[in-house]
Amino acid sequence: RIELCSALSEGGLTPSIGMVRRVRAAVALPITVLVRPRAGDFLYTDDEMAIMVDDILACKKEGIEGFAIGVLTSAGQVDVERVSQLISAAQPAHLTFHRAFDMVASWPEALEAIISLQFSRVLTSGQHSSALEGAPNIAQYVTQAADRINIVPAGGVTEHNVARILNETLAPEFHCSARGTIASGMSFHNTRVHMSAAVYPIAEYSRQVATQERVTSFRLTANQLNSSQ
Amino acid sequence: RIELCSALSEGGLTPSIGMVRRVRAAVALPITVLVRPRAGDFLYTDDEMAIMVDDILACKKEGIEGFAIGVLTSAGQVDVERVSQLISAAQPAHLTFHRAFDMVASWPEALEAIISLQFSRVLTSGQHSSALEGAPNIAQYVTQAADRINIVPAGGVTEHNVARILNETLAPEFHCSARGTIASGMSFHNTRVHMSAAVYPIAEYSRQVATQERVTSFRLTANQLNSSQ
Amino acid sequence: RIELCSALSEGGLTPSIGMVRRVRAAVALPITVLVRPRAGDFLYTDDEMAIMVDDILACKKEGIEGFAIGVLTSAGQVDVERVSQLISAAQPAHLTFHRAFDMVASWPEALEAIISLQFSRVLTSGQHSSALEGAPNIAQYVTQAADRINIVPAGGVTEHNVARILNETLAPEFHCSARGTIASGMSFHNTRVHMSAAVYPIAEYSRQVATQERVTSFRLTANQLNSSQ
Amino acid sequence: RIELCSALSEGGLTPSIGMVRRVRAAVALPITVLVRPRAGDFLYTDDEMAIMVDDILACKKEGIEGFAIGVLTSAGQVDVERVSQLISAAQPAHLTFHRAFDMVASWPEALEAIISLQFSRVLTSGQHSSALEGAPNIAQYVTQAADRINIVPAGGVTEHNVARILNETLAPEFHCSARGTIASGMSFHNTRVHMSAAVYPIAEYSRQVATQERVTSFRLTANQLNSSQ
Repeated sequence: RIELCSALSEGGLTPSIGMVRRVRAAVALPITVLVRPRAGDFLYTDDEMAIMVDDILACKKEGIEGFAIGVLTSAGQVDVERVSQLISAAQPAHLTFHRAFDMVASWPEALEAIISLQFSRVLTSGQHSSALEGAPNIAQYVTQAADRINIVPAGGVTEHNVARILNETLAPEFHCSARGTIASGMSFHNTRVHMSAAVYPIAEYSRQVATQERVTSFRLTANQLNSSQ
Repeated sequence: RIELCSALSEGGLTPSIGMVRRVRAAVALPITVLVRPRAGDFLYTDDEMAIMVDDILACKKEGIEGFAIGVLTSAGQVDVERVSQLISAAQPAHLTFHRAFDMVASWPEALEAIISLQFSRVLTSGQHSSALEGAPNIAQYVTQAADRINIVPAGGVTEHNVARILNETLAPEFHCSARGTIASGMSFHNTRVHMSAAVYPIAEYSRQVATQERVTSFRLTANQLNSSQ
Repeated sequence: RIELCSALSEGGLTPSIGMVRRVRAAVALPITVLVRPRAGDFLYTDDEMAIMVDDILACKKEGIEGFAIGVLTSAGQVDVERVSQLISAAQPAHLTFHRAFDMVASWPEALEAIISLQFSRVLTSGQHSSALEGAPNIAQYVTQAADRINIVPAGGVTEHNVARILNETLAPEFHCSARGTIASGMSFHNTRVHMSAAVYPIAEYSRQVATQERVTSFRLTANQLNSSQ
Repeated sequence: RIELCSALSEGGLTPSIGMVRRVRAAVALPITVLVRPRAGDFLYTDDEMAIMVDDILACKKEGIEGFAIGVLTSAGQVDVERVSQLISAAQPAHLTFHRAFDMVASWPEALEAIISLQFSRVLTSGQHSSALEGAPNIAQYVTQAADRINIVPAGGVTEHNVARILNETLAPEFHCSARGTIASGMSFHNTRVHMSAAVYPIAEYSRQVATQERVTSFRLTANQLNSSQ
């Protein structure tokens, strides 16, 4: 399973349609597209709702069969009405509630709302900045979920900590970016210019991508975990 | 004129198709869409070229009449062959060469290549991190361009420095984000969680958008500049 | 026990002599002063060695009885000769080897070297960026140390994770900054100016300090841990 | 003339006494020591005042003949009483008012207060984040100062912009860090560990120092400016 998004440094945003089409053509695995029109909170205007509906419909035409979505009220509850609008557009795709879940005011109430809305999974770092920090909370979500929905630890999951996270949370799967830093292919470097808001100039000539090496490493770790259970 | 992109903190990326459609429906001004599939350098793979071509075609169907594009060779030259592929897809749209220009090895050669390719304008911060820092260089580009193409100062342009930048560069127009920070509408805040790679936790509950206030302020400044010339 | 340093955002630097004197006058607890003349690696020039020796001697005159020090060779070994020079200056103070330990090439060899040099404790995040991430490694250090030296988890230790860290590592104590963000007392704010290299403007008018609230919170957590063992 | 401080990434803090002593021993130029006990605003507690007085007295014993200081009231005025306390300790040293000036509510009033207090110079970026951005404001300060005090542009001054800044402001001197990034001498790198709050891992194995190359470059630029006036 692949989750597709752009702008990971902002926590992930909706990818362009060209990106969706090319990844869809390239891989046979199920693809979940992140639908998040901007960084920041998960309280959306009517215009932003319309953008998300349009993005979902356009992705469905490309053969996308899964979406990661999430809308909250200003009080930090799952906005059931607005999430339902997105679900209507997404039908019959598989639904993932993304890390907006980590921003809710009351997780037991939010989890029940998400289960009622027929989501298949929730991505969460346990209301902390990484799944390892939030593992004790994630374990509580797994208990309450009681197989009604998959609780998926996400955020800072690495080969080094994935076994601890799965052991501590008893979660059945995990979510990771398998990011590694790769160097630019440019032989000419202009180090005076920063395009991004990066603190260090190196950013222009390296970038973070999912690497074969790290995907393989995660796969080996996962196989070991499976065989030891 | 409006330039549309997502993920400004990464220097701008291609927006989602829903974003393109809704902005196209909302505004009567000409819209230029930034076509940049990822942050980092401007040396693209065949897959990334295909993504950009698809994005351009999809945006044209939505009525977009301008694109900001740019591809470099590993040696830091304008990649004439690959830029031509994007131009073929974009025809008959207006063409802007984006800040990839700030990353070229030899600007006089790059500027002639861009003029030959029939671009209408070049966005540039003068091979520095802001247009104010690079203004003396931009002035040289304006001189060489000699009205064959519009040199457009871009990067860190504010109401405070726009008059100095136009005076120093003699550029006929400028490019700005008119960004201001707005607070989140959320009444509930979870300050333990960071979604983005932000250094400070405040980021989750404020964001930077083009504000009416700053657009008005730019307009007033621009009017004063016009009337004083 | 208090460890005194400046510039926590750079990982901690040697505090000024005025800071040392006033904190010494204000608290009856034992004080350990961090001796680190600049951010970055732990490979020091002769001048930097001389600065550290001078700082240690000046702090001893102020009644300081503990120092956190560390010097590595370019190959990532404990630089026994240079550390011995600092120890000679520090005698008879208590010695802590700071997180330079996290940057060594071979921890078993480094740990034996540090024990031979008569250090009382080692601060470590288990060769990861936080003690929680590095906890499995820290547990190995505790086993090898076998009570010959105190292994002290340090780096990102909070009320939320301290119990997990102590349980996983079996370490006898921990190190934390008990930092909280406090607002500035300034009623006038100039939000146009950034003094520091901070990404977000908020930084000028808040700062991170050890707060009474968090110290109390850590103390309560520690008491619960003690009574449950 | 040299200004000595630590923790430039926090905007500069008071250096350790060992640093002061060794730099004093190494250079014959006049040295100004920055006295700033922590990052953030310039509203200080009684304890922080006492720390600054102690630091000034200790530096005087080491032969330091200049100090950069600054204290504001919560309303953003120069705190004349508290600044006078620091001046009493510093007598008869030369006095520089540091960039706290950029944070005052009313610069004309603040400038007159600083002149009355017998300061020799004021460091300023013109109430913006860099001296180039703030140059039009700095020009106003120079006019009002009318040779009663030296207005010194500071903040982001480089070889590329120093001539423009001096031309636009008519300031008689400037302040720069002449920083360059140097690589670490370590042959062994542990890239898993971040000591500082840095966003990019590179930070552990490079650092920014005043380099001979950039000092020479500034000197050449300054000579050209002098000979052309």
